[in-house]
Amino acid sequence: MSIKRHEQGKILSSAVEANGFVFLAGITPKTLTKDIKGQTQEVVDEIDRLLKVAGSDKSKVVSATIWVTDIRHRDAMNEIWLAWNGGQNLPVRACVEAKLADQRMLVEIQVTAVK
Amino acid sequence: MSIKRHEQGKILSSAVEANGFVFLAGITPKTLTKDIKGQTQEVVDEIDRLLKVAGSDKSKVVSATIWVTDIRHRDAMNEIWLAWNGGQNLPVRACVEAKLADQRMLVEIQVTAVK
Amino acid sequence: MSIKRHEQGKILSSAVEANGFVFLAGITPKTLTKDIKGQTQEVVDEIDRLLKVAGSDKSKVVSATIWVTDIRHRDAMNEIWLAWNGGQNLPVRACVEAKLADQRMLVEIQVTAVK
Repeated sequence: MSIKRHEQGKILSSAVEANGFVFLAGITPKTLTKDIKGQTQEVVDEIDRLLKVAGSDKSKVVSATIWVTDIRHRDAMNEIWLAWNGGQNLPVRACVEAKLADQRMLVEIQVTAVK
Repeated sequence: MSIKRHEQGKILSSAVEANGFVFLAGITPKTLTKDIKGQTQEVVDEIDRLLKVAGSDKSKVVSATIWVTDIRHRDAMNEIWLAWNGGQNLPVRACVEAKLADQRMLVEIQVTAVK
Repeated sequence: MSIKRHEQGKILSSAVEANGFVFLAGITPKTLTKDIKGQTQEVVDEIDRLLKVAGSDKSKVVSATIWVTDIRHRDAMNEIWLAWNGGQNLPVRACVEAKLADQRMLVEIQVTAVK
């Protein structure tokens, strides 16, 4: 058994490797003035970066949880989601509405991949 | 490392096998005019079907996340939940309230099993 | 493949071991008159207890999901979170707002660890 933690901050690690899986933190956008599409793009870009840090990539994502602060943003979020993964190697997914840490955040995505 | 994706649609796979686990998508009901019990029954029936597709079954479910749009529906949902699993081989579970993709959906259940 | 279920109740198991992982149920506080810090302390104490039951401990937690009923409680919850893990061996994490099973519950935490 070995655990490898990446980019450990004050309250969480951004990625953790364990038992052949790569767990990523729930990723939120950095530029909170952007609209749902802009925020989702920032999130998937950061997911790409972290997956690489942990030795994986988007073709190996097995599961995703998506929280949007307004479920009516789902379609616009999905446009970026689809452009990101190209409709291939799709994970299982759940997408529900929830308030997030900052009221200007419109989306948070958490994925689990394999190495 | 191998990943096997089942029933890949436009935005997600319905089931993904990886590292000895079977991940299922968050399953929502199809008949949105049904009440909470009817919708929950449809969800667990679909979970049974997908687990079989991926070579597992309900006795091997290890974890479940349940979202209900009204937390007061929890008891009625639990009646169907219990009838489904028979109080045996129970997974860990979290059940919280959240708005779902369609406002007529009352419940969404996502499970992870082992093969 | 073997699954080991601990403290199986009426609707869920409190902990499940499978494939080198330990899955814990979403843990809620027992003393619902306590404030967010008191409730969070009860939750992490129970997580410690259950991890031990399943042969793991807090240094091996890889992922955490935290639901708070009021996202403004996040900072106070984080104080207890940090005191608990000491800022070391931090898991990935997502923290969102959601109504919970009892309206007096302020926090629910679900973790996954390795053995």
